[in-house]
Amino acid sequence: MRRKDFLQEPVKHIKISGKLCVNQLIQQFHNAGSFGAGRLSDACDAYERMLRDKECTVFLALAGAMVPAGMRSLIADLIREKLIDVVVSTGANMVHDAIEALGGHHYKGLWAVDDYLLYRYHIYRIYDVFVPEEDFTRLDYKLVEIFDEIASEYAGKTLSSKEFAWELGKRLDDPNSILRAAYETKTPLFLPAVRDSEFGFIHWIHASRENCKAPLMVDAFKDVPEIVEICKRSPKNGMVVIGGGVPRNTVQSAALASKKGMDYGVIITMDRPETGGLSGSTLTETVSWGKVKGTADKVMVFADAMIIFPIMVASVIERLGDGFRRKPYLKREKLEAIGGA
Amino acid sequence: MRRKDFLQEPVKHIKISGKLCVNQLIQQFHNAGSFGAGRLSDACDAYERMLRDKECTVFLALAGAMVPAGMRSLIADLIREKLIDVVVSTGANMVHDAIEALGGHHYKGLWAVDDYLLYRYHIYRIYDVFVPEEDFTRLDYKLVEIFDEIASEYAGKTLSSKEFAWELGKRLDDPNSILRAAYETKTPLFLPAVRDSEFGFIHWIHASRENCKAPLMVDAFKDVPEIVEICKRSPKNGMVVIGGGVPRNTVQSAALASKKGMDYGVIITMDRPETGGLSGSTLTETVSWGKVKGTADKVMVFADAMIIFPIMVASVIERLGDGFRRKPYLKREKLEAIGGA
Amino acid sequence: MRRKDFLQEPVKHIKISGKLCVNQLIQQFHNAGSFGAGRLSDACDAYERMLRDKECTVFLALAGAMVPAGMRSLIADLIREKLIDVVVSTGANMVHDAIEALGGHHYKGLWAVDDYLLYRYHIYRIYDVFVPEEDFTRLDYKLVEIFDEIASEYAGKTLSSKEFAWELGKRLDDPNSILRAAYETKTPLFLPAVRDSEFGFIHWIHASRENCKAPLMVDAFKDVPEIVEICKRSPKNGMVVIGGGVPRNTVQSAALASKKGMDYGVIITMDRPETGGLSGSTLTETVSWGKVKGTADKVMVFADAMIIFPIMVASVIERLGDGFRRKPYLKREKLEAIGGA
Amino acid sequence: MRRKDFLQEPVKHIKISGKLCVNQLIQQFHNAGSFGAGRLSDACDAYERMLRDKECTVFLALAGAMVPAGMRSLIADLIREKLIDVVVSTGANMVHDAIEALGGHHYKGLWAVDDYLLYRYHIYRIYDVFVPEEDFTRLDYKLVEIFDEIASEYAGKTLSSKEFAWELGKRLDDPNSILRAAYETKTPLFLPAVRDSEFGFIHWIHASRENCKAPLMVDAFKDVPEIVEICKRSPKNGMVVIGGGVPRNTVQSAALASKKGMDYGVIITMDRPETGGLSGSTLTETVSWGKVKGTADKVMVFADAMIIFPIMVASVIERLGDGFRRKPYLKREKLEAIGGA
Repeated sequence: MRRKDFLQEPVKHIKISGKLCVNQLIQQFHNAGSFGAGRLSDACDAYERMLRDKECTVFLALAGAMVPAGMRSLIADLIREKLIDVVVSTGANMVHDAIEALGGHHYKGLWAVDDYLLYRYHIYRIYDVFVPEEDFTRLDYKLVEIFDEIASEYAGKTLSSKEFAWELGKRLDDPNSILRAAYETKTPLFLPAVRDSEFGFIHWIHASRENCKAPLMVDAFKDVPEIVEICKRSPKNGMVVIGGGVPRNTVQSAALASKKGMDYGVIITMDRPETGGLSGSTLTETVSWGKVKGTADKVMVFADAMIIFPIMVASVIERLGDGFRRKPYLKREKLEAIGGA
Repeated sequence: MRRKDFLQEPVKHIKISGKLCVNQLIQQFHNAGSFGAGRLSDACDAYERMLRDKECTVFLALAGAMVPAGMRSLIADLIREKLIDVVVSTGANMVHDAIEALGGHHYKGLWAVDDYLLYRYHIYRIYDVFVPEEDFTRLDYKLVEIFDEIASEYAGKTLSSKEFAWELGKRLDDPNSILRAAYETKTPLFLPAVRDSEFGFIHWIHASRENCKAPLMVDAFKDVPEIVEICKRSPKNGMVVIGGGVPRNTVQSAALASKKGMDYGVIITMDRPETGGLSGSTLTETVSWGKVKGTADKVMVFADAMIIFPIMVASVIERLGDGFRRKPYLKREKLEAIGGA
Repeated sequence: MRRKDFLQEPVKHIKISGKLCVNQLIQQFHNAGSFGAGRLSDACDAYERMLRDKECTVFLALAGAMVPAGMRSLIADLIREKLIDVVVSTGANMVHDAIEALGGHHYKGLWAVDDYLLYRYHIYRIYDVFVPEEDFTRLDYKLVEIFDEIASEYAGKTLSSKEFAWELGKRLDDPNSILRAAYETKTPLFLPAVRDSEFGFIHWIHASRENCKAPLMVDAFKDVPEIVEICKRSPKNGMVVIGGGVPRNTVQSAALASKKGMDYGVIITMDRPETGGLSGSTLTETVSWGKVKGTADKVMVFADAMIIFPIMVASVIERLGDGFRRKPYLKREKLEAIGGA
Repeated sequence: MRRKDFLQEPVKHIKISGKLCVNQLIQQFHNAGSFGAGRLSDACDAYERMLRDKECTVFLALAGAMVPAGMRSLIADLIREKLIDVVVSTGANMVHDAIEALGGHHYKGLWAVDDYLLYRYHIYRIYDVFVPEEDFTRLDYKLVEIFDEIASEYAGKTLSSKEFAWELGKRLDDPNSILRAAYETKTPLFLPAVRDSEFGFIHWIHASRENCKAPLMVDAFKDVPEIVEICKRSPKNGMVVIGGGVPRNTVQSAALASKKGMDYGVIITMDRPETGGLSGSTLTETVSWGKVKGTADKVMVFADAMIIFPIMVASVIERLGDGFRRKPYLKREKLEAIGGA
């Protein structure tokens, strides 16, 4: 590269006057192009391109306490609007989705509070969100019954985590529920660490009841071929990752095992690379593995996803416009067939 | 507090459809009220209240490379619109302001680049922003002349860092310049570590020239009574802090020395408290010192200011509406008088 | 509290001269008592107390790429020396343990390197550690055979992740292997997200082979009662957590489901609380849930575990002295019996 | 590079048994070579090489609340033992040094405490360190007198921040004081943001006293030629940076202005590069400016300096051995002469 190639595009300074739509601000971030603001605008571009690419399947990896904090309807809507094709989540986010579907709530709280007082009050804290114990208890009772139903239905057969999620969604009567939206639209929703959540406790309660005819049998490995097959059949794949952990790893591993490599990648995280963990690893590190392509459209935003994810979605929805209807490359029936295989 | 007091306000989940103005999104963050999004909406509220409080003087503490990254016009406009009353900045931000005022530029660049190549090309990198050496050289030449002018004018008298900043602003013919805006509007602009920047180098060049009649004499301590006096005369004080370091400390120290304590505080930083440094110290820690009042309206947002600060400004400007004209409690002439004292 | 109660113990400044043993330095950190150094010395105290408490069962939660980075023998030794009673790990750490047990290696590498070149060279990067693809391939081949053996042995029965880990350990002939050490000493080793690792890929390869008689059937939920039972039967419980994610959550959930609450807790992480995720959540937050007792001896160290964990172990081993032999409250045979139930 | 070049040195796993000296552990970190542990061992190597390099001048940049937290004697000893040649510090660290020299104390405290109670008790908090107001008041009284003395002595002449620091050191009778150690050994100690600390308040009190004959006149720019000259005259330069901010920038700017570029660089910080601030900027970024040489021996450790700095010092002192006496390239008298020029 010659010297002048480095000095092509002057930073345009941000101007704010009057009302500004979210995407107008993101456009200014694009023009400034610097630091976190530049990365955020790149993230919006990458997500927009994934959605406009008629051959691309879009994965959402969902870690962190996004549902307790208010992202539930947003994600359910993205599923219904077909702006996400596959979801990989922690178990906990779906537990909290089910709590609200069954009439429970999360409450705006405080992070500087006497936690021992909360303990005595049977209120659980998630940073500055409170959940009363009774909402968990209601969930436990109701889900033990649902587990019973599912177990009878599957009698002796094992479920994958996706089948488990859909079976729950089938029984949750709430249009804002992520589990329900996934079930209704036949959107694959994988819970690779399903046991590591209240579902684990509920399973234990259910299985140890005297009158338990059969415990629910979720096969830890049953999902693997399905998610790999989805990657394989898609000409292109893209991922939007919130946080890191098991959901990010599961999506990236599918891209590796299918020998496809992601074509698009957006990661929103506060983790940093230097401690060597997967959650903070750079997108270039994933290139060495073949999880993400060297040529992929990829960007990592170091920020709180509770702020960044809604901004990115708002910006991209504004860009797509009212008339936009996305037709995913993999029809939902096709996806279902993979799962049934 | 009784149990039910903790469970008053359910988290309202975010919904995005169609075009959304920045402040509409912030309102949704308020309704969700959680994690970073809740803090950001609180920050907007606090900044709005500072501006609507007729007795409050608003300080902006400016660290980090905000000017190279595209915040220059935004801050100049805030000064001109009287949405900021006093600025405390690193020297470097004003160096970069002057570079653009003298026709130089910052360029959109890359963070993953061969820095030794850049070195050989005489291009300086600030994360993903590039500055060509010649823009610094032009600054050096021009400022040496300006230093000469100022030195003759002050002949034997010392300047405070604010006087130094205003003298520069007087000679920079650029409406988008922060230095110019501060000079024109008589907005105090303090540079407590002025030596720690290209200004230090320029001073050295100027003072060691053969034909230097008198070096510029900036008194390190001359500003102190002035900034303390501003706090004292204001019935209330508020601060918006970008990053930490010397600018944050200077503003907080003024609040302490004046025995006023800040009434409002917004801090946007990625620093964390556990290493004990001032930059990441919590707002409650500042309460123990009396720098910020225990009852103050205060919030810390842990995020990249390049994203958060423009969002906050856009949200608050939208709230204030087109007709809003702020009349600062301390008239600019009054402020100037303090400085002249 | 009276004023003077806050001003009891002056900070003693650190002095370094001549050779210093690790624990001597930690003692100085105790005397200074400040910031990260104070927390690290508290962590050493808490781990020491767990080990000296004759009624306490000690859990190790292991996330992050600790095994690739050189912690393998250290953890295997802690298991053999009975300085850890139960391990909960990511799948990946055990994959990397098995890679070395089968003759593979991790290599000291670089973090600033052309990842696309590595990709073409079939070298995988984990921050600054390299693993050649052939070491994964060797693992795949060997483990497919091992899966076949285990599947025949269990013929129709399901395994828990602990049984799976022990069955692997039984077949790995390497004294430095964590899997082997756990198997030999009958130390429970849980892999709650076992599918989310190369084990998932290997399972898929194995299950889809033409001549596969039976796929390995790992029941996602089978471990739950066992780990809860361990907490229940222990008069006291303590945890040492490296990183966060599923391992931390699994240990804490066991403490919750068993209605015991941890009596000791040490967490080493770089994650921060403000984004609301479990990995960075404070130990006081866990008190609201009952996962950790309000009265527990607990501390969180915000640092890279690759530095901090070995220092903590070295300090505590020095304190315990050569003659110390720990007798865990739950005899290994007892633990095994729980698993067999 | 050929493939096999990447796979030369297998990670050696850490083993801990019996007593371990700090440097033995660091050697193990070297053998593992990974993540933060590898960086820490590289930092020890770089500091050792600086000290053994007979042509190298060693700068210490000191930000963060290192003195309140217990690093005071350690730094004073490094100065006396000639293991540091030049110090650049925040004003605050020297304020706290003077507090102890005048009989005040810092106290081991708590970070989770009612800060409003502390406020009413006149106790200042620095994370988990407490300082009683009376120790500040004693400092104020005593320093006002000292300012008077210095002002009379300098009658009409300006001081540089270094001269100011030495004048203080001359009057503090405490062998553990950093200011004293710098004065006695004629070690340059620069305070580029001297005004931004209690010194600013004290200067104000002093200058506004009725009987003040002359205020102390510290010239903000007077130090610049001196620190640049030190870099110039040293065949090689090395820096150890704790934290970032003004101290780091001052040292790096001297290396730039002198056209030398640092030959060695160790930075210990928790800051990250992505927000664009200088404090978290990478060492390669500094190469583009010429602040650090492309070929320099350089490493950045992302960790709490309260833990890492003493470990590094202990490891290097152990390596140097009892007989080691360093002879700095720039004799102290030479350095003093520069300052007097």
